[in-house]
Amino acid sequence: MTAHPLAGRAAIAGIGQTEFSKESGRTELQLACEAVLAAIVDAALDPADVDGLVTFTMDTSEEMELARSLGMREISMFTRVPYGGGASAAVVMQAAMAVATGVAENVVCYRAFNERSGNRFGMMSGVTTMPLWLSWYGPYGLMTPAAWVALHARRYMETYGATNADFGKIAVVDRAHAATNPAAWFYERPITLEEHQASRWIIEPVLRLLDCCQESDGGVAILVTSTERARDLAQPPAVITGAAQGATFDSEMMTSYYRDDLTGLPEMGVVGRRLWEMSDLTPADISTAFLYDHFTPFVLMQLEELGFCKPGEAKDWATIERLCVGGELPINTSGGLLGEAYIHGMNGITEVVRQIRGTACNQVADVEHALVTAGTGVPTSGLILSRA
Amino acid sequence: MTAHPLAGRAAIAGIGQTEFSKESGRTELQLACEAVLAAIVDAALDPADVDGLVTFTMDTSEEMELARSLGMREISMFTRVPYGGGASAAVVMQAAMAVATGVAENVVCYRAFNERSGNRFGMMSGVTTMPLWLSWYGPYGLMTPAAWVALHARRYMETYGATNADFGKIAVVDRAHAATNPAAWFYERPITLEEHQASRWIIEPVLRLLDCCQESDGGVAILVTSTERARDLAQPPAVITGAAQGATFDSEMMTSYYRDDLTGLPEMGVVGRRLWEMSDLTPADISTAFLYDHFTPFVLMQLEELGFCKPGEAKDWATIERLCVGGELPINTSGGLLGEAYIHGMNGITEVVRQIRGTACNQVADVEHALVTAGTGVPTSGLILSRA
Repeated sequence: MTAHPLAGRAAIAGIGQTEFSKESGRTELQLACEAVLAAIVDAALDPADVDGLVTFTMDTSEEMELARSLGMREISMFTRVPYGGGASAAVVMQAAMAVATGVAENVVCYRAFNERSGNRFGMMSGVTTMPLWLSWYGPYGLMTPAAWVALHARRYMETYGATNADFGKIAVVDRAHAATNPAAWFYERPITLEEHQASRWIIEPVLRLLDCCQESDGGVAILVTSTERARDLAQPPAVITGAAQGATFDSEMMTSYYRDDLTGLPEMGVVGRRLWEMSDLTPADISTAFLYDHFTPFVLMQLEELGFCKPGEAKDWATIERLCVGGELPINTSGGLLGEAYIHGMNGITEVVRQIRGTACNQVADVEHALVTAGTGVPTSGLILSRA
Repeated sequence: MTAHPLAGRAAIAGIGQTEFSKESGRTELQLACEAVLAAIVDAALDPADVDGLVTFTMDTSEEMELARSLGMREISMFTRVPYGGGASAAVVMQAAMAVATGVAENVVCYRAFNERSGNRFGMMSGVTTMPLWLSWYGPYGLMTPAAWVALHARRYMETYGATNADFGKIAVVDRAHAATNPAAWFYERPITLEEHQASRWIIEPVLRLLDCCQESDGGVAILVTSTERARDLAQPPAVITGAAQGATFDSEMMTSYYRDDLTGLPEMGVVGRRLWEMSDLTPADISTAFLYDHFTPFVLMQLEELGFCKPGEAKDWATIERLCVGGELPINTSGGLLGEAYIHGMNGITEVVRQIRGTACNQVADVEHALVTAGTGVPTSGLILSRA
């Protein structure tokens, strides 16, 4: 086959993050600046070397405020990716595109928010205006991400016989990994499946409290440059061998209920197919994955959409042993969005970079290729990173 | 020199637009769909062929609503460019990057709004909340684009001896071109410099009514594909030989008053330098240009930043004869944002495509290379389009 024109052209050369908390005590712009500066320092570059900035449409930190605060000079590429957490891998793809086409040399992707102490996504009680898409659901009280996801997951349970205890295995895996990651909110606090099953219902009979990710304050940044330049910088490059966005017909923002089949995440199917084509790899080549885990059922569906197992099989395939470090496919080795922090998926990318570098807290042996996905239930994205 | 990796790789293969009005009588999503469908039909493609969507952060038409309405299937690239009209050329650059890196094959860029009958940018009387950057200026009444631009332009007048009559020449040129463009709001309504000088002050002594662009309702779309595929489609390709975004230190959103020098548009200087480098062309190679003309003084400054003349010379260099069709550098041949319509700069790109195709109302003879710029006073962008 012909090599994909983007495969291997760019690499992640720097990563940065703030502490993850429930109340940062400072502005989102401050968090963004701290994370971005940390990523630049990690790569042993200077703010004046940065000439591209990519973030989420939802981010509140304006590019020029960030650039001024850190002393960046000329910026020759800036764009924002829509669809909430679906943007996390896509911002890196945009950066890779800029680097591969000579539009920018060193692009920083960032996301920072006070999603616990400030605007909480699940807190709809203060909503006074409603976007058009939500007006079909809002009057019936279908107003939170947990509720939107649960309708899909309920159909999945019905069709394939999955139970809430099956979903709970993901929570146990995440919390096991968080327990040994000092940066994780749930450091030293693992859970058992029994504890999961004893936690209160959020949406009965689909989601319990321990199926739902955290609300977090914090910032994460990722510095992308050419693979060639990355080799001369401070860190071992995490080469971007796969990068894809995906959306399909009749997508909505977390409420794609008018499709023929509600048991899958077809956007992630598109992303998966494109990642395998671009990287020329298969699921068997992946040493570890970070699968966006805002709610546990969508992790099972992702395993199916990405081809790690067949539709309906994830409830049996996804054993705790298989998904923990030491198993066949360790996932969310930092603790995930459930166990470490919810930084809109961006902390999944930094964790996968650490796995490629060999510097993760819960290091998987001999990681050559790792996969990371972005938000599910929305138009989304994914990356495959590889050792240089 | 080495060829720039993006130069000549992608081309504009389709353009579409609605009528331009003061009251469209329909939603912005409807306008977006009409423009996008027109661009697809222009290229003789089908909505299902489109796999990329790029718009402005400010656009209200959600990508998936548009895709569903028109029957698009899988979308593998979507992003949004910030900074208002500064995004117009940048959305095409993003599309070109996607095409050049194999991330998408046929990308549609769109922008549609009811900027006259709906949310008027210059109408701040209804403002009840204020972004941080505006809080320094709002209390003093510096609340509209005209006011923000006028402060810069006043310094330019003081430094270089330019007068409001110098600015008026741009309005006369635009309206001369609009007068012979049936799609223009000011069709068959040219103005003289005397009429310009008799129009009322908006910001004395800088801007008169006829220095300010229109408020318009309408939509514009642009279809980008590889230059190779474009050759097989319905229209002569407008090859993207230059594409650049630019921002510099201490940029603000139209209020960059803390710089050492207020007489230029340094963002456009960055864009210009990068366009010449990428295309390996010089100002002398440009047959016609569309220079973003929301306010006339910034057209003079653009001529200087892009290298058509030196700083301070534009007031003398920019004669009506030189800038009208038949002159050395015909600009804004559709009538510009002042004469045709204000569709946030996107109608400048379609006009330049028509000039390359040889199908413009006010056709310039033998156009090989044409230049188009995006919004000024903000982080911005530009394109050079060339005959295949």
